[in-house]
Parts: sequence; structure tokens; C-alpha cells
Amino acid sequence: MAQRQLLSSEARDALYGSFESGQILSQPAELENYDRDASELRIVPELVVKARCREDVQKLFELANRFDFPVIPRGGGTGLAGGCLASQGGVVLSLEEMSRIRLVDEKNLIAVVEPGVITETLKNSAREKGLFYPPDPAGLDKSTIGGNAATNAGGPACVKYGTTRDYILGLEVVLPNGHLIRTGVNTRKGVVGYDLTHLMVGSEGTLGVITALTLKLIPHPEAVAGMAIVFPDMAKATRAVGAVMGAGYLPFAIEFMDHRCLHLVQDQLPFPVSGSEAMLLMEMDGPEAQVAEGIKAMGNICLESGARRLLPAANDEERERLWEVRRAVSLRIHDTAGLYMSEDVVVPISRIADLVAALPALEEKYDLTVYSFGHAGDGNIHLNITADGPERMPQVEEGIKDILGVVLQMGGTISGEHGIGLAKLPFIAMELSQESLELQKGIKRVFDPKGILNPGKVFP
Amino acid sequence: MAQRQLLSSEARDALYGSFESGQILSQPAELENYDRDASELRIVPELVVKARCREDVQKLFELANRFDFPVIPRGGGTGLAGGCLASQGGVVLSLEEMSRIRLVDEKNLIAVVEPGVITETLKNSAREKGLFYPPDPAGLDKSTIGGNAATNAGGPACVKYGTTRDYILGLEVVLPNGHLIRTGVNTRKGVVGYDLTHLMVGSEGTLGVITALTLKLIPHPEAVAGMAIVFPDMAKATRAVGAVMGAGYLPFAIEFMDHRCLHLVQDQLPFPVSGSEAMLLMEMDGPEAQVAEGIKAMGNICLESGARRLLPAANDEERERLWEVRRAVSLRIHDTAGLYMSEDVVVPISRIADLVAALPALEEKYDLTVYSFGHAGDGNIHLNITADGPERMPQVEEGIKDILGVVLQMGGTISGEHGIGLAKLPFIAMELSQESLELQKGIKRVFDPKGILNPGKVFP
Repeated sequence: MAQRQLLSSEARDALYGSFESGQILSQPAELENYDRDASELRIVPELVVKARCREDVQKLFELANRFDFPVIPRGGGTGLAGGCLASQGGVVLSLEEMSRIRLVDEKNLIAVVEPGVITETLKNSAREKGLFYPPDPAGLDKSTIGGNAATNAGGPACVKYGTTRDYILGLEVVLPNGHLIRTGVNTRKGVVGYDLTHLMVGSEGTLGVITALTLKLIPHPEAVAGMAIVFPDMAKATRAVGAVMGAGYLPFAIEFMDHRCLHLVQDQLPFPVSGSEAMLLMEMDGPEAQVAEGIKAMGNICLESGARRLLPAANDEERERLWEVRRAVSLRIHDTAGLYMSEDVVVPISRIADLVAALPALEEKYDLTVYSFGHAGDGNIHLNITADGPERMPQVEEGIKDILGVVLQMGGTISGEHGIGLAKLPFIAMELSQESLELQKGIKRVFDPKGILNPGKVFP
Repeated sequence: MAQRQLLSSEARDALYGSFESGQILSQPAELENYDRDASELRIVPELVVKARCREDVQKLFELANRFDFPVIPRGGGTGLAGGCLASQGGVVLSLEEMSRIRLVDEKNLIAVVEPGVITETLKNSAREKGLFYPPDPAGLDKSTIGGNAATNAGGPACVKYGTTRDYILGLEVVLPNGHLIRTGVNTRKGVVGYDLTHLMVGSEGTLGVITALTLKLIPHPEAVAGMAIVFPDMAKATRAVGAVMGAGYLPFAIEFMDHRCLHLVQDQLPFPVSGSEAMLLMEMDGPEAQVAEGIKAMGNICLESGARRLLPAANDEERERLWEVRRAVSLRIHDTAGLYMSEDVVVPISRIADLVAALPALEEKYDLTVYSFGHAGDGNIHLNITADGPERMPQVEEGIKDILGVVLQMGGTISGEHGIGLAKLPFIAMELSQESLELQKGIKRVFDPKGILNPGKVFP
């Protein structure tokens, strides 16, 4: 990691002269909220600037160029890879106050929003007009649309609806040189020039700062229904996933929890968990009649695939309770583990059971406990790797590397949702060739020749 | 346009020495098929090389670098912007013989194909396994998946299913330096590094040559139904589109034809066309019961929005007949016009009627006749601009520029499907800022520092 440089007193003076005092945070108590994301990493920034408009973002870059300090953009701080941390000093640029929904247009099925809009707020605003913004990352009550775009955030609904990328039509971006560009379109289609919009998406705040987004919305589904299904083991559970999708059903969520997770939340479950039982959570949306028929048919397919019990949710409240169990898993793991690392690998759906089956040998080899849950419908598995305490870190990292190697051998990827940021830097070259990394660094240089935007992220 | 350079005799000798004789075309009769795409442009290439494997593509780039000649990749030749024409000399690289479907995997809902696979062939192969590859560009019986990816091809189904981009998970690409990279993933998700996959998509063969694609498939819909709806005018027709989508129905196609188009194909219609009547074609897919209910409900919404008549297709044959009418429009325009230019603008759905209403004044000003039809569900309008003969070209181009200006003022884009290629080069700077173009040229230099891949395209 490059040496962290302190802001010069000239730079500080210029910042204080350029922004209102309420826009700058520098006191330790204030900075505490900005030293972290949802990963285990902690880096206290020197200064936070809260932009209120795109001109603020441009002004900050003007100073960053003049005084040569890094700018680290930040949305809701719910990332899991440390991508918004000031690892090389400089100014954290918070976009949380750029949070206006400029437009929800039910005639054209689009929304235009600022980057600091909370994901859930947008979903609700769309809902009020009968529209649907599908992406549902886990932290949607805190994460921002700008952050979702920067990381191409996923979530359970991806299996049917795709990721954040699929809902971004156009962007307004401030480049590291302070200039503003517009990418993409305000319409549902457009093929003029290179697709800078989707290059920005998932670039983890290293190419430009998004100051507005044009989003694609779709009609809101009429109804939702869900159920939990218990299987004797993970292999039977994933076989059921294949059977359901093979029969032409496309639930909007197919989550799974392995036996370790189930045992951990046993007290919240209405049935006793035994042995290596695994659970699926399936939800379907669409027209009322179709949903009712779908849930029934998927239940039968699961029984034919060896399910032990079906637990249909009779109403929204029961559905919510199922999700609470799912969410409780992460919290419990956090509470019980001395050391906790989160990986979010993806393998082809047909290899989920193989991966889960490969874990015990690796657990033994590295003295780890791995809890797996996640999105069975798209093969995106959250591996929660735990050990007794922080002193075990070196061995845990070795174990992670081994696990990621297994994932890649299965035709998978080392990250389906979280991205690289700081946390996955040591592993990116396991997946991407030197040639591919060089191209990407070349693109970075085109956008940010001075390297002032979020330096030290994504590329080793 | 840069001067076209002839291949040196050394380069020719090296090409003949490197490929089998059947792989090289150089006779005028052979080259005739490679001097055109579906636009009006014609440029005879000096030489065509047919690659049979990725090593052939690598070998060709090796020679191109050594002898400094351009390489122009080509799929099915169904583009509408001249993107695959050898406008600066060099070798046309035909990928038509790299046409193997390597895998259609119903467990993981993916396909792995070579770039020369015909779109329809892939759709049929997926269908045989109960799966669906939704993109349906107009020339799907001739266009290739590689070409679809290079141009981010659209089609009627975009309104529900998105464009080709949304179905590309990963690519194998040969770079202009001859090196092979893999982009993206074989899984349904992945966020490792910059999204080179979606940068390649729509780059019109200027950044690299796609030699394999991993595609996302979905379960095949159970049923399809369609109907034609006649309205007294275009304004009422587009109001109906808004009303249908506002009521939560998402047909997979909403096509329209204006009164000019209707009069042109009058003899194929089962009713007399009068005045400024316009027609919509709506199709819905999904579970059988939902489709039946949807068609009925959408018909009623259209009647409430002022439709004059509903023409439901009782079966697949009748449905096909409706599409034949739609397809006949282009052919008839071609037959009747002395000069014919095709634009494919997009405006926000709510502005379609405004754009159509703005056309008569422009027609009068430039002495043109404009036929409009296209994808009403996503605002993508094919404007077929005709005049008496080729001598009218200068005035027609002025008229086109004026029309594109109106489109941009309405918040639209100058191309929803066809791309820039050669044909739209004069207009790209109307839509993209200098700053954006400079970034894109910077990316081009990263991928192709010597400028040997499809030079003179996309950027003026």
C-alpha cells in the first residue's frame, strides 16, 4: 500500500475557503462514521467534504488537481470491500446530501436521481407510481443509488431481474479533471459511441464521480408470494433449484442457507433442525394467479426433488419473518466469530453443491468454520469464513486463497457483488490475466491521468 | 475519409502463405458479397480472410501488425451503418465460419457460442432445450451473434427483454496486438475489475475481435399471442402505449406503423386504410392464462384510448401474417423510393407523437417523404427518409441533420440500434460532447494503439 500523505495546510485552507463550514468534517467524532464500510477495514480519513451539487464535486476536483490530493467518493458506506476508504489519504467526498429524486416518470418508465438517494427511498417512490426498481442489495435501507452503480450492486432479485447495471440508462459524471460528461441516454435504448455508462458501473469510484443517474423502471408486479423449503442436504436443495428453473419457473429470489447457518438461527425457526439439513427460500412475483400457481408448482417440484417440508408464507408478515431469519444469519455469525471474513463467490448453479461439498476438507486444512448462504438462483454464494481470533488471520487468508482457487476451477468468479476495493486486491490476479489488467489500467489512465481519484483500489 | 491504401505484395504473399486457399477470397465475384451491409454503402474490399478458429484471428493480426494493414471484422453483413466495410483498405475478416454452438446448458441457463452463429440458429437451439434467447434483431435469419454483440443489436423484443448487451455474460476477445483475453464470467454475476465485456458490446468491432461468447438464457415462455390495433391517428396510438404500460402490462413487442406505411401495404391488410390512421402491433408472452388475460385487457385499454378496431391473431399463422405486413413496409419503401435513407432515432415514449407531428413541416422544408414505423414500446422509431433520386442527397442530408436535432431536443438519441459505423459519422458530435469523444478515443488507443482494427469507424 502506498504511503498515506497528509493534506498540506495550503490545501486545507483552500478547502475551507471553498466550501461552507457545514460541508467539511474534520473532528474525530465526526470522522468516525467515515472510517469504515461494512467490511472489517477501518481507516480514519483526514477530512470529509459533503457535496450538495455537482458544482461542489467539480470544485473539489479543481482543488485536488491544484494541490495534488486524492479524492475518495463515498455513498452509504455499505460496501464490503473497503472501496470508499481513504487508504492513501486525501479527502473523502460524501455524496449523501445529493439525495434528490428529480423525476419519476410513469409515462416513460424512468427515474432521474442524484447519487445520494437511498435505494429503498427510490424503490418506494417508484412504487407510489405503480413502478418497480428491482435491485435489492442487502443494505438497501442505507445504501445509495450512486454506490449501487459504482459497485454494480446485486441482491436476491438478480436471478430474475439482473443487477444494478441493467437499470442504468445514462449517467452524469464529473471526471477527475473536473469536467462534466453525460453518458448513455434518457431513453430505453441507445448505441451512440462506446458504452461509457456501463464502463462506469462497477468501476468502484475509480473513473469518475456519478452526480446523476437516469434509471430504467418497469411496471410493478401485482403480487408476491414466498415459501421456505427444507431439504435433507445441500445437494438435494441445489438439485431442486435446477429442477424449478428447468421447468420454466423464474422466481425473483432463490436464497439458500446451509446446515451451519440453520443451526445458528435454530431458535427463530418453527421446526427442529437436524444433521446437514439445508433450506431454500423461494419468492415469486407477477400477476396474482400466476404467482399462486407458481408457488404451488415449485413446491411440488421441490418435494419431488427430495424436500422434507414446505413452509409457505401465508401473508406478507410471514414472508417478512422468513427474510428476518435469512438476515439474522450474518448477525449471528458476527456475534459468535472471533475473526470473520466475507467472500461472495459465484459458481455455475450446477456446481453449488460441489462447492459446498468441497468446504469441509478446506475447513479442516486451515482450521476454519465456513457458513454458506446466498443466492442459489444465480450461484452467488456468500462464504462467511470464521476463525477463533484475529491472530489466525495469516492462515485464514491462505485458506481463502485456496477456496477462491477451487471456485475459479469450477468456472466461477471470486466476486459476484462486493467487488475488489481494497479487500480483494491480493486476489484479482487469480482471475484476470495480466493482459486484461493492463488494459484496465490503461483505461484508468485515460480517465484519471494524475491518479487522484480513489487511488490504490481495484488494481494491485 | 482517409486514403485507402493497397495491400503490399509482401503482405499478400504472407497472407497466402499463412491461410489455406479456401480461406482467402480475392476474385471480384467472390468479393461482391463483402462490399456491402444492409445500408446503401458499397466498398469493395481487396481481400477477405475467413477465420476458422481464434488462432486464425491471431495470425491475421500478427500479419496486420507486421505489414501495417487494417483488419475489418465482419459477421452476417446485416448492419445498417457500414461498420463492416473496408473504407480504408486492408483485409475484411469474416467470422462466418466460426459458427459452432459449443454449449447450451439448461442447468446453468447459459450458452457458449462462436461469433459466426446465426442469431436464429441460437434461438432455435435454445428453444429445443426449453430455453429462450430473447434478442430478435430484424435480420435474425442472417445476422450473427458476434455482429449482434459488436453493435448491441436490438429488435422488437427489447421493450420487455432488453438488448443483446443484457444477454452477454462473458467474451473471448482477440486484441489488435494478437493477444487473447477473456472478459466477464461464465456465471450469471461477476464484478471483478472494469466491465470490459460491456465496453466491447456496441464498440462496433473497433476494440477487439470477439471469438467466443457466453450468453445468458432464460426459461422459454409458455405461450405467445398478438393483435393489431388500428387508431385514427398516431397521437391516440402512442397514448394507448402509455396507457397499456401504465396499467402494468409489459408486452414483449409494441410495434407501430404510421399512416404512410399503412397506405403502402394497404393490399396486405384485411381492412381499408383511411386518412391518418396508424396501427399498433402488440404481442405478449408468458404463461398461457396470463397471455390470454393480457391480450384481452390490453385490447380494452386500446379501445378506451380511442382505437377504431382490434384485430387479434387467432393463431401463430395469423400472428406471422401481421409480422409479414410489418416487414413488407421496408421492402415497399425500397421499391418505391429513388433515394432512401434509414435513421433509427429514439425519443422518450411520451414524445413519439410529437416527433411524428413535427415531421410534415420538415418534409415540406426539405422536399422529403418520411415513413415512420418501429418500436413504440421503447420510443425507437425507424424513420425512412426518401426522395426522388440520388441527386437529392445533399438536401436530404441537411434534412436528416435537422430531424436529428429535433430528436435530441426531445431528449432522444440519434441511434437506438444501428450504431455509428460510417453512415452516422457526420452526426455523432451532435449528441456526444468533445470531452466524451476524447475519452472514447483514449480508450480506442489503449486497445488499438496502432489503429489497425476497423479504422475510420465510430469517430469522425
